[in-house]
Amino acid sequence: MAGTIDAKLKDLGIELPEPAAPVANYVPFVQVGNTLFLSGQVPLVGGKLEYVGKVGAEISEDDGKAAARVCAVNLIAQMKAACGGDLEKVKRVVRLGGFVNSTPEFGNQPEVVNGASDLMVAVFGDKGKHCRTAVSAGGLPRNVAVEVDAVVELE
Amino acid sequence: MAGTIDAKLKDLGIELPEPAAPVANYVPFVQVGNTLFLSGQVPLVGGKLEYVGKVGAEISEDDGKAAARVCAVNLIAQMKAACGGDLEKVKRVVRLGGFVNSTPEFGNQPEVVNGASDLMVAVFGDKGKHCRTAVSAGGLPRNVAVEVDAVVELE
Amino acid sequence: MAGTIDAKLKDLGIELPEPAAPVANYVPFVQVGNTLFLSGQVPLVGGKLEYVGKVGAEISEDDGKAAARVCAVNLIAQMKAACGGDLEKVKRVVRLGGFVNSTPEFGNQPEVVNGASDLMVAVFGDKGKHCRTAVSAGGLPRNVAVEVDAVVELE
Repeated sequence: MAGTIDAKLKDLGIELPEPAAPVANYVPFVQVGNTLFLSGQVPLVGGKLEYVGKVGAEISEDDGKAAARVCAVNLIAQMKAACGGDLEKVKRVVRLGGFVNSTPEFGNQPEVVNGASDLMVAVFGDKGKHCRTAVSAGGLPRNVAVEVDAVVELE
Repeated sequence: MAGTIDAKLKDLGIELPEPAAPVANYVPFVQVGNTLFLSGQVPLVGGKLEYVGKVGAEISEDDGKAAARVCAVNLIAQMKAACGGDLEKVKRVVRLGGFVNSTPEFGNQPEVVNGASDLMVAVFGDKGKHCRTAVSAGGLPRNVAVEVDAVVELE
Repeated sequence: MAGTIDAKLKDLGIELPEPAAPVANYVPFVQVGNTLFLSGQVPLVGGKLEYVGKVGAEISEDDGKAAARVCAVNLIAQMKAACGGDLEKVKRVVRLGGFVNSTPEFGNQPEVVNGASDLMVAVFGDKGKHCRTAVSAGGLPRNVAVEVDAVVELE
């Protein structure tokens, strides 16, 4: 079975980045028993922030969804690091916490966060089916459009 | 002991709805060991959203509290589904995450989220006493007034 | 080893307050197995709220960071209560959830929440290194500048 998830990532044309190292006194993930808690990820691509701005204003809903997908890619990169490189050890994506940086009247947070949810299921299949909360933040770091954190169960 | 919680719900005049099925690649709950994580619930009543608007503007604080109570009813409906219909299996309501859709200057998030907290204790007694976070979101799906997620311990 | 954390707190000049009791149907913490979930803490000092206002407007970024530090002190006070007074039982600070009450365009949530993150590592060393999410809320209780919740692993 080893390599199934890696093969799926390749099929999807996704190359996982080097997982970003936090720049402060926190870490990308902490494991308690088999439960892995992951820090919120932002749309960092090749060391540069993409999708900067508020959804409903300078960022479209579609771009917000694309931003959420990048957050999910970065979460998977951190999951891989937590698993010592072997994503087959992911037993279940348990929970996503999606925060959208939007105008106050924006109401399509679910569609935006689907960018992350859809990727998890595309990559992990039934193991990727998670519960989630999709809300707008009042603002996000460096004004990025989306931030997503996660809880994952490992084998 | 079977039926105590169902009897309490009946005493309170609460009829649990059919638990809402998410319309995307996520699920209402995921269980890890004995810990149940639940997706954020909104004030959906009979398939229609109620309490649409911002607390502090078109939604009063009292209506916000009522909205939070509906979110809690919907969380209990999902908990029942997760327990195979037997709410006696709920060992502890561990945590509620309350998000209020409010004007920026609104500061009574605790009073609003009490609509959910009070119901959990009315239904589950000491087992319903949870920790929680009560904050305003910058906006919520379909502009509903409140969203509440939960972590629950099962027997 | 008993007393190491208490000694560190003393070195840092931190006197833990009496842990605040919630004024509603929720509790400061709930333990599931070895995992402790804590309610969101606000900058309550000696029974009075400090740092009231929005970061980026009437509250400076530095004061926001100081507010986050107070939230962390209050979290540690609750952790001590949960441990029956013995903070040596803290195995790991697993996760902080930082909510900043800011103007919509504010983007330095990480710097603000570092006030809490830095204190956890100053007090607990490597055991204090946590994952986290740092976002702005749309508003916070009583208009405080910061609220921080936590998940902690106990021995």
